[in-house]
Amino acid sequence: MLIVMKPDATEADISRVIGVIEHLGYRGHAMPGESRTAIGVTGNKGAVDPTHFENLPGVADAIRVTKPYKLISNDLRPGRSSIKVGNAFIGDGSLAMIAGPCAVESVDQVFKVAEIVAASGAKFFRGGAFKPRTSPYAFQGKGEDGLKILAEVRDQFGLNIVTEAMDERGVDLVVKYGDCIQIGARNMQNYSLLKYVGQTKTPVLLKRGLSATLDELLLAAEYIMSEGNYDVILCERGIRTFADHARNTLDISIVPAIRRLSHLPIIIDPSHASGHNYMVEPLARAGVAVGADGLIIEVHPCPQEALCDGAQALTPEQYVGLNSQLATLHDALNVRPGAVEMSEALA
Amino acid sequence: MLIVMKPDATEADISRVIGVIEHLGYRGHAMPGESRTAIGVTGNKGAVDPTHFENLPGVADAIRVTKPYKLISNDLRPGRSSIKVGNAFIGDGSLAMIAGPCAVESVDQVFKVAEIVAASGAKFFRGGAFKPRTSPYAFQGKGEDGLKILAEVRDQFGLNIVTEAMDERGVDLVVKYGDCIQIGARNMQNYSLLKYVGQTKTPVLLKRGLSATLDELLLAAEYIMSEGNYDVILCERGIRTFADHARNTLDISIVPAIRRLSHLPIIIDPSHASGHNYMVEPLARAGVAVGADGLIIEVHPCPQEALCDGAQALTPEQYVGLNSQLATLHDALNVRPGAVEMSEALA
Amino acid sequence: MLIVMKPDATEADISRVIGVIEHLGYRGHAMPGESRTAIGVTGNKGAVDPTHFENLPGVADAIRVTKPYKLISNDLRPGRSSIKVGNAFIGDGSLAMIAGPCAVESVDQVFKVAEIVAASGAKFFRGGAFKPRTSPYAFQGKGEDGLKILAEVRDQFGLNIVTEAMDERGVDLVVKYGDCIQIGARNMQNYSLLKYVGQTKTPVLLKRGLSATLDELLLAAEYIMSEGNYDVILCERGIRTFADHARNTLDISIVPAIRRLSHLPIIIDPSHASGHNYMVEPLARAGVAVGADGLIIEVHPCPQEALCDGAQALTPEQYVGLNSQLATLHDALNVRPGAVEMSEALA
Amino acid sequence: MLIVMKPDATEADISRVIGVIEHLGYRGHAMPGESRTAIGVTGNKGAVDPTHFENLPGVADAIRVTKPYKLISNDLRPGRSSIKVGNAFIGDGSLAMIAGPCAVESVDQVFKVAEIVAASGAKFFRGGAFKPRTSPYAFQGKGEDGLKILAEVRDQFGLNIVTEAMDERGVDLVVKYGDCIQIGARNMQNYSLLKYVGQTKTPVLLKRGLSATLDELLLAAEYIMSEGNYDVILCERGIRTFADHARNTLDISIVPAIRRLSHLPIIIDPSHASGHNYMVEPLARAGVAVGADGLIIEVHPCPQEALCDGAQALTPEQYVGLNSQLATLHDALNVRPGAVEMSEALA
Repeated sequence: MLIVMKPDATEADISRVIGVIEHLGYRGHAMPGESRTAIGVTGNKGAVDPTHFENLPGVADAIRVTKPYKLISNDLRPGRSSIKVGNAFIGDGSLAMIAGPCAVESVDQVFKVAEIVAASGAKFFRGGAFKPRTSPYAFQGKGEDGLKILAEVRDQFGLNIVTEAMDERGVDLVVKYGDCIQIGARNMQNYSLLKYVGQTKTPVLLKRGLSATLDELLLAAEYIMSEGNYDVILCERGIRTFADHARNTLDISIVPAIRRLSHLPIIIDPSHASGHNYMVEPLARAGVAVGADGLIIEVHPCPQEALCDGAQALTPEQYVGLNSQLATLHDALNVRPGAVEMSEALA
Repeated sequence: MLIVMKPDATEADISRVIGVIEHLGYRGHAMPGESRTAIGVTGNKGAVDPTHFENLPGVADAIRVTKPYKLISNDLRPGRSSIKVGNAFIGDGSLAMIAGPCAVESVDQVFKVAEIVAASGAKFFRGGAFKPRTSPYAFQGKGEDGLKILAEVRDQFGLNIVTEAMDERGVDLVVKYGDCIQIGARNMQNYSLLKYVGQTKTPVLLKRGLSATLDELLLAAEYIMSEGNYDVILCERGIRTFADHARNTLDISIVPAIRRLSHLPIIIDPSHASGHNYMVEPLARAGVAVGADGLIIEVHPCPQEALCDGAQALTPEQYVGLNSQLATLHDALNVRPGAVEMSEALA
Repeated sequence: MLIVMKPDATEADISRVIGVIEHLGYRGHAMPGESRTAIGVTGNKGAVDPTHFENLPGVADAIRVTKPYKLISNDLRPGRSSIKVGNAFIGDGSLAMIAGPCAVESVDQVFKVAEIVAASGAKFFRGGAFKPRTSPYAFQGKGEDGLKILAEVRDQFGLNIVTEAMDERGVDLVVKYGDCIQIGARNMQNYSLLKYVGQTKTPVLLKRGLSATLDELLLAAEYIMSEGNYDVILCERGIRTFADHARNTLDISIVPAIRRLSHLPIIIDPSHASGHNYMVEPLARAGVAVGADGLIIEVHPCPQEALCDGAQALTPEQYVGLNSQLATLHDALNVRPGAVEMSEALA
Repeated sequence: MLIVMKPDATEADISRVIGVIEHLGYRGHAMPGESRTAIGVTGNKGAVDPTHFENLPGVADAIRVTKPYKLISNDLRPGRSSIKVGNAFIGDGSLAMIAGPCAVESVDQVFKVAEIVAASGAKFFRGGAFKPRTSPYAFQGKGEDGLKILAEVRDQFGLNIVTEAMDERGVDLVVKYGDCIQIGARNMQNYSLLKYVGQTKTPVLLKRGLSATLDELLLAAEYIMSEGNYDVILCERGIRTFADHARNTLDISIVPAIRRLSHLPIIIDPSHASGHNYMVEPLARAGVAVGADGLIIEVHPCPQEALCDGAQALTPEQYVGLNSQLATLHDALNVRPGAVEMSEALA
């Protein structure tokens, strides 16, 4: 059920509708748009009777929703969402660059990269303190010590920190030290974790699972949003196919497909998608050209010594070159003007 | 590192080797075989120096392991493992039948199925109290109340309970009420959860992820075992491919592939693999014929009213017919004699 | 358009209906069933007006067909088809064994295998004279000389010859020397070739393409049948997926899926599906258990010397052992009684 | 075997080496590069003895080739190939635009599109006279009549004609009426057809098969080249995966992967890859950004009336808008200077 308010509906009208929704035992999600507010209803098992709402003041329409998703949908929020991560935005029409090493290894390693990333004009820094590794015997990350190093990066370089959490303890720590909780591809359908991050106020970068369909990705975002955290950024990082020339197959067509259905920002990860240093640059260019809101890229001061995924990391020099190339490309494409900031609109 | 003991090595010899391993800061996993015991070493970052062990009493050989897995491996344990689940075994040469509804819905529904399952001679009962659903708005399971119903099934019918946990709270509850913790396909690479169940003493049914390779499945089992819980049963439940005539593609070839590498039991789930009632019977027959240690099958007293996955559930009548067919087939194939029980061997 | 005749319709009634179809510029395909004959209409661009037929003598019904296939369909022919290949049948309820080497290499090699295959009771012999190889520099087969060797096998051992053709010249030669034209997976959508074999009177073994959906496979058969050759046997030989433990993923679920839609026989190729000798036996057992009409299996007197695909070929000893195992299994499953022979029914 | 000539080797030296190769029963393929000529040897079953060549005048080196391909390889021809198609080039550093309807339907339809395509500055026109359709009952193309219409397009608008052939008769007709033979995805491993087009002098546009690996695509090109036709243009048109939001998954990562291995040009087909009108523009931009040599795009004067694949065709207005966007993008990326023309270099 989606309740569309009239353009001149007051805050009191909106509160009254939400009150009725809650009285019925459901949950109401107000989503202000440019000209009017829509209110999503979740928590209902079957159909909701629209007559509860149709005659309330300020209500324009009460629409039954047949699609499996509501909160991610363009129906609810026709514009595009801009998500505030720390002190900067993703989805506001600029090209968000999120760069840094795969794993936090040492202060020295992290600071070397952060200096270059900050100088390049990027506003976001990535780096893993908890590493999901296929083998239990591989390097598992530095944990809270790693997060502390990342927090220092923010203090010194003004970069906003994007870092992965793999469980509830990890989420609590990322909320404490970081600016954006990354949910990795292998946890995209870890519904308990999705609900837990949905109860925080920290933005979430949600990576597409290795074999997730578009619907599954959007419904994973819906899990987070249905708990009240609307600040979700989607990320395409390659899917698993038969093709063996890259580690995964970067599926750029998901960018226009998401645009048709959802107001959420979508970024591209050319590093994990390819697994090869030499592919990162052309795939990053393609990501900008297809219209992504940003890129997340691995940079390591010394890729051949990286404790994980060194083969795909760019050197600092390569990153600087790529960054200026992408800026030119983004300008040439002359993308749409800035979107409305979602979390502010909801305040 | 794998340390192979001589056939006449004493318990004291084995304890001494484990003591040295622990003194070096690693972890030792003793795996008695029919004629000799092997001891796996985990926790080492790089290569372990074999000279620490070669001259200890009772040691036959110290072998460097280059494969990414150790504890699941035939190298460590040449026979096949038989896992005790409640009061019965999986992997002992008999055909383990695990049957029941997808989700626990009510006492009535569960008991109707349990009566038939018990009468058919099956020793294991399945049923989900926590349901991983693609949509946050779909039925999510009855939680602890559902587990209590399952515990009653065990008391009344003597069936051993196999049921899914999706997070740490769920694991604690399944340990309390059930006999085997099921880890679902979507959580196969939820490493935090794998480690957590690895710290319990309850057997684990580990389902293959939708796009998991053989190595990834085996390494997920290795995660559990490296924490000290060796009672892992693998489960093939269909993989995601382009084919659209079944919900997933049942990959029976993984059964012989696992036999070559691992001592762990492997069962087949024809219900989730196909998603269609009419396919369950032929796929179940194929699962027995390919040599699986058991089957997990959905049965519902009234499939068209099921709250989840009704399309694939068998009616009780269908299940009874299938069960007798599979028994005939299993006899005709005249499978190998019983394996050694693993958890007892380790006692 | 499908015209269903009354049970007591005469041959003259059927001829009259076909005459009207041809007069309208279409093509009529009479398919006698156990109790009545159905006549498929092909060649129409849009809908055909049923009033042309409804009042003709002997006509029970004229049904519009909305599915993309007609001739392969159970609607047209409710029973199962039994296809005569040389002097034996595939699809008559017996288990058809088609065995032999991947490629014809020499008289000696072929005769050694043929002797064992014939002694085992199999009625069909396979062997390629034209080999579709991924590399232009790999062994391409012995061509017509190879076919002559196969013809000698038929003369000496009474085995019916199944062998691949890759182009029109090859089809002409297989028609001349062999009993069944195999269309390989890579040519499953080579529509010109499908039409060409559809114009012969020789049965066709049509292998599923590496990434063919069920519909695409059935429509490839429809291409052949729409030209007038109704003797098509389908073959599942593994599909291409991300899984890397076998060369392809054997998709046994296509067997029940085909049974629901089509009267055509379906066999399984465990050799190409797996690519590994050790997997052939368990996958062959699964193929019988899932209900396939037969198996096609590679046997080589000396697999390690084979010019192609040696890794998957069984030794003659292995084949003999497998064959007796499969016979026991087929008996235990006690499959349906014999189907009506299709090509005879159409005579 | 690859024979590398000295920079100062004469034509007579090269001819002598080829004479020796042919005397040994093999085939020599001279490939002049910027500074030196390399000669590929094909037709050998096993290793070729390098001593036959090492001491001949003008020979710098004779190298054993262990990769399965030779003629497509950068080892043989370090620069990039530029292929002359009619009176224009593909692979010369410009962005080759190949536009037109999926199928030739009528003079009127074709001319409307051709006028716009020519006015936009494109040099190549596409349109199918033979259509590979999944169903035998779908529109199969206008055949030779369609090709005659395309030949008129060349005469009137100066556009070079790229059109598909599905069999040998079709190849003969495309050689007669067209400028470039397209081999469709379903025929990528139709080796008889590949050899046949390899014996013509007409350039070939080779589309990647739906489940073809990089190696299989390159080896399909090698089939054509090993017959003497070196003018092969590769085309990525989407692969078959589990993803369902687009008809196929456009695998742009194959562009950099091919650049590392091969001198052949590679173009992108965003129309077939996506199957949706709204995705063509963003995927086309991505194709340019990733570094493809050109694009092949469907344009129809009235997409909703198209006899095949209307859903993905651009309107003429959309095409004109896209074309100018791509030109800006290609300029911004400032691609490498022109390559050497391959067919001229071999003259």
